[in-house]
Amino acid sequence: MTAARTVDVAALVAQAREGRPRAVARLISLVEGASPLLREVMAALAPHTGHAYVVGITGAPGVGKSTSTSALVTAYRRAGRRVGVLAVDPSSPFSGGALLGDRIRMGEHASDPGVYIRSMATRGHLGGLAWAAPQAVRVLDAAGCDVILVETVGVGQSEVEIAAQADTTVVLLAPGMGDGVQAAKAGILEVGDVFVVNKADRDGADATVRELNHMLGLGEARAPGDWRPTVVRAVAARGEGVDDVVAALDKHRGWLDEHGELAARRHRRAAREVETIAVTALRERIADLRGDRRLTALADRILAGTLDPYAAADELVTGVVAGEG
Amino acid sequence: MTAARTVDVAALVAQAREGRPRAVARLISLVEGASPLLREVMAALAPHTGHAYVVGITGAPGVGKSTSTSALVTAYRRAGRRVGVLAVDPSSPFSGGALLGDRIRMGEHASDPGVYIRSMATRGHLGGLAWAAPQAVRVLDAAGCDVILVETVGVGQSEVEIAAQADTTVVLLAPGMGDGVQAAKAGILEVGDVFVVNKADRDGADATVRELNHMLGLGEARAPGDWRPTVVRAVAARGEGVDDVVAALDKHRGWLDEHGELAARRHRRAAREVETIAVTALRERIADLRGDRRLTALADRILAGTLDPYAAADELVTGVVAGEG
Repeated sequence: MTAARTVDVAALVAQAREGRPRAVARLISLVEGASPLLREVMAALAPHTGHAYVVGITGAPGVGKSTSTSALVTAYRRAGRRVGVLAVDPSSPFSGGALLGDRIRMGEHASDPGVYIRSMATRGHLGGLAWAAPQAVRVLDAAGCDVILVETVGVGQSEVEIAAQADTTVVLLAPGMGDGVQAAKAGILEVGDVFVVNKADRDGADATVRELNHMLGLGEARAPGDWRPTVVRAVAARGEGVDDVVAALDKHRGWLDEHGELAARRHRRAAREVETIAVTALRERIADLRGDRRLTALADRILAGTLDPYAAADELVTGVVAGEG
Repeated sequence: MTAARTVDVAALVAQAREGRPRAVARLISLVEGASPLLREVMAALAPHTGHAYVVGITGAPGVGKSTSTSALVTAYRRAGRRVGVLAVDPSSPFSGGALLGDRIRMGEHASDPGVYIRSMATRGHLGGLAWAAPQAVRVLDAAGCDVILVETVGVGQSEVEIAAQADTTVVLLAPGMGDGVQAAKAGILEVGDVFVVNKADRDGADATVRELNHMLGLGEARAPGDWRPTVVRAVAARGEGVDDVVAALDKHRGWLDEHGELAARRHRRAAREVETIAVTALRERIADLRGDRRLTALADRILAGTLDPYAAADELVTGVVAGEG
């Protein structure tokens, strides 16, 4: 605690803004854990955020998420953009910026000062990566990244949630994996803005594209102004179709701007995040009362039959909200 | 809403205490859902609770939970006890006291006025059966049940949680199912007070008992006064060993009384329940702010970079706790 207190947050943020990778890494470590400096860091970052375009990338294991992310990094770097990569793996017990497993494949970018790559696997302060990720995104944003790719390594509800917190969400599929149905099950069809059928040189790519078009209802009429999900074919391992993916992202970004949707999405995201942090804070205040004499006294009265649990909870809430907690 | 308001809760509770099954059923329906009368019902029940001995029954599918529960009902009825059965199935979409699936097997008790049988599958007010069950238990308690058997139909974390909310928790196993390991995985070894190896006439019963004794560390020394989990063999379908199970339950009940553990367990349970209700209430207050101008204004300031999400959450909490929510 004392050691942590000696961290000069303002200096770290200044160094991160100058592009010093160790400062960026340090700040992410501070926000992804339950660091006592979390609030100070978030406050210091606030004025420097909102610049980056955040792209979520999700899909089942084996579709080539890591390879595709790496190919996108190459494309954006060629265009002179600073890129941040956040690889989020809720199922992994490891974290801390290590190049885990298939992150090795991104080794080609490891020495590029215009690219930050970070793996996240810790649960974070709010008890879930879904809420640790946006905080790490803010660090990369403040560090001057133009584009931040948030890649979820696994597949599941929380991965979908993380990917859906982006400005644009990319859903990856590959032929011959029964992916359409799997994707529909995981609820990722709903969150996708751009769909990439990767490994499109394999048998079954046409069928996957057809199935996808069908499931997305791309043949159906849409309200004017509604975004029509884009389906792109790619072979990320050979860099094929990557420019098409970038073009689809640019188009979606343009649509977001044009329709005021970028601000609207970010606004909804911010509101949800505040809500989650507030609920967590109140929950912690109540948990702090475990063993407290007030909670003990309330339980005594319930056992005596002179109070019911709901009335007891009302009394507890009144105590907490009065700041007695 | 208006229709619900015409319910005379005091009269329902009085009828339930007289043993009128329809009043009991109605009260459980009111507490298991998000009835606007929930609080009124809980308050009316409070003075009449605390009498029943609550036994949780859990185990993997196929071990014979329903048959064992039915056999216990028969044994307790023979002893002149009034019995309540709450069959909780978090995975089922059905509820409402229907005789679901294997509940048919309890048909023999269906016409006995000294037995209440109720299936629960709805999520309940607190978003989980784990917290709807104790409320239904309070109804059965107030209705004069001497023993309440809370049987969980599935297997998983929430089932274990429900069963562990009892005064005594029975864990059922059967031979040849690799049950020991499964049980250990599900965390039910920790919550069991009494272990029943059911279908003990089958091959492998000895091995299951040995494995269980080993996993429970029954050969090891215990601190004086600690409860030593009991392992009982039974063939519930033929009523064999059921008296031994009842004897083990009586012994545990006696131990609970003797060591002040009954009051201690109930006290911990009441405190946890109050905590959960309080957190839920606060969470709902905050959720009510969705779309509220205060939350909107906070999100605006985050997007403008003049506020960070943590400071925003602090402002929101202050608003909620000041009763503005």
